[in-house]
Amino acid sequence: MTSFASDELAELVEFAEELADIAARETVPMFRTNIAIDNKSRKAQFDPVTAADRAAERAIRDHIAAHHPEHSVRGEEMDDYAGSSPLTWVLDPIDGTKAFIVGIPVWATLIGLLDRGAPRIGVMDQPFIGERFVGTPQGSYVQGPLGARRLQTRELTRLEDAVLATSDPHNFHDPWASARFHALRERVTLSRYGGDSYFYCLLAAGQIDIVTDPGLDDYDIVALVPIIENAGGIVTTWDGGSPVNGGTIVATANAALHETVLDLLAG
Amino acid sequence: MTSFASDELAELVEFAEELADIAARETVPMFRTNIAIDNKSRKAQFDPVTAADRAAERAIRDHIAAHHPEHSVRGEEMDDYAGSSPLTWVLDPIDGTKAFIVGIPVWATLIGLLDRGAPRIGVMDQPFIGERFVGTPQGSYVQGPLGARRLQTRELTRLEDAVLATSDPHNFHDPWASARFHALRERVTLSRYGGDSYFYCLLAAGQIDIVTDPGLDDYDIVALVPIIENAGGIVTTWDGGSPVNGGTIVATANAALHETVLDLLAG
Repeated sequence: MTSFASDELAELVEFAEELADIAARETVPMFRTNIAIDNKSRKAQFDPVTAADRAAERAIRDHIAAHHPEHSVRGEEMDDYAGSSPLTWVLDPIDGTKAFIVGIPVWATLIGLLDRGAPRIGVMDQPFIGERFVGTPQGSYVQGPLGARRLQTRELTRLEDAVLATSDPHNFHDPWASARFHALRERVTLSRYGGDSYFYCLLAAGQIDIVTDPGLDDYDIVALVPIIENAGGIVTTWDGGSPVNGGTIVATANAALHETVLDLLAG
Repeated sequence: MTSFASDELAELVEFAEELADIAARETVPMFRTNIAIDNKSRKAQFDPVTAADRAAERAIRDHIAAHHPEHSVRGEEMDDYAGSSPLTWVLDPIDGTKAFIVGIPVWATLIGLLDRGAPRIGVMDQPFIGERFVGTPQGSYVQGPLGARRLQTRELTRLEDAVLATSDPHNFHDPWASARFHALRERVTLSRYGGDSYFYCLLAAGQIDIVTDPGLDDYDIVALVPIIENAGGIVTTWDGGSPVNGGTIVATANAALHETVLDLLAG
């Protein structure tokens, strides 16, 4: 893996934040505009999520093409672009589409940077609230309504004290995985649903101890890996593998807790 | 029911907003401070939710006592206070304690005003985001990051097109109620969890069509009734009764949809 020079790193972090700013100009004006025009057919309605998603990804890709045409790009809405550089941007303009549809401001724009396949920089941006989580090899931090601060995961290791989060328990369609999730849920002190990528950032911030979701795509998780890992957390698939290609993912606050959780999920 | 003179109404709305401002000074500094000090025992930990809840209710009650000692007060954390006036404030300093604990900014301060038992004014305030929903006999509105606007529910009437929300499907402990909730869930186009009082405000805003929760207390719902009703929505218990004392509550975007939903929930 390349080790960036610190000025190159700073420049790439700044560029990642620019991409988040550009996405926000497309997403925020579409948020909370989902008042149905008629009640005849949902299919005939204007779909602000898809429109905002595509407009934001288009704008991000244009900016990358203009400034770093050598960088590769993967995103939710459009075809992969292969550049000559070992760097690849992995984009999800609106992670948490259900939240966007219902008007809850916990959706986010996710911007990750892979270096030869390894997550190096991640940005999670919630522009309605004005809160942004950033992970880099030099640490993870948040900027938002309460100012800026560094992120650090919790040291808690007992399952019985842990706070668990998942986007939607009904997403565990596989009966075995659903049973394993509920076995975990019954052990922890508190479980919470409906947070999407926010949950992984709040794990990095020391608020949550375990986050798990099935069926994630690479663009759902790549940006979150540097935020989690550079705050002290661990993120893998349920069988302990790399999270970089998505799948059924679990993040925990520390290595000791991760081992306990993987054992329990294995059944 | 008394009909307020419009200057009396404006003064009471302003006072309700002052109470929300006062609560925010207590709650926001405690938000996202839940990093465990040790990992030995959760019980021994500092509990910022309870501390913030009590401090905010104390501050609200002091302000009411100083300016309107004749008003009655009911709140989550302290004993009822009976004044000489037919007006009663109903308070929940932090609705959505799970959200507060995990650091997701969808908790809210709820401030409702009953006039001889009927909800007349409601404020739902989310001070981290800086978003406030207000309902009065003159209409409902929101003020927040996108500016101010009036609230209006959706006209959608077909269940198959509807968006459903509930705080947590596992809260339906009663097997019959759980079965009826899932019968509803299977009919709608989208369901979403983990929003607490935000969901009722977003129903008022035309984003969500049906919100239902079991086991609500009066202080969970009283403030939301004026926000919902003055935006065109309907809120009752599952058997069509008044929501003022809490219970198993359902709110819908309009009367036609409400009838359909109550029929389905009755089984």
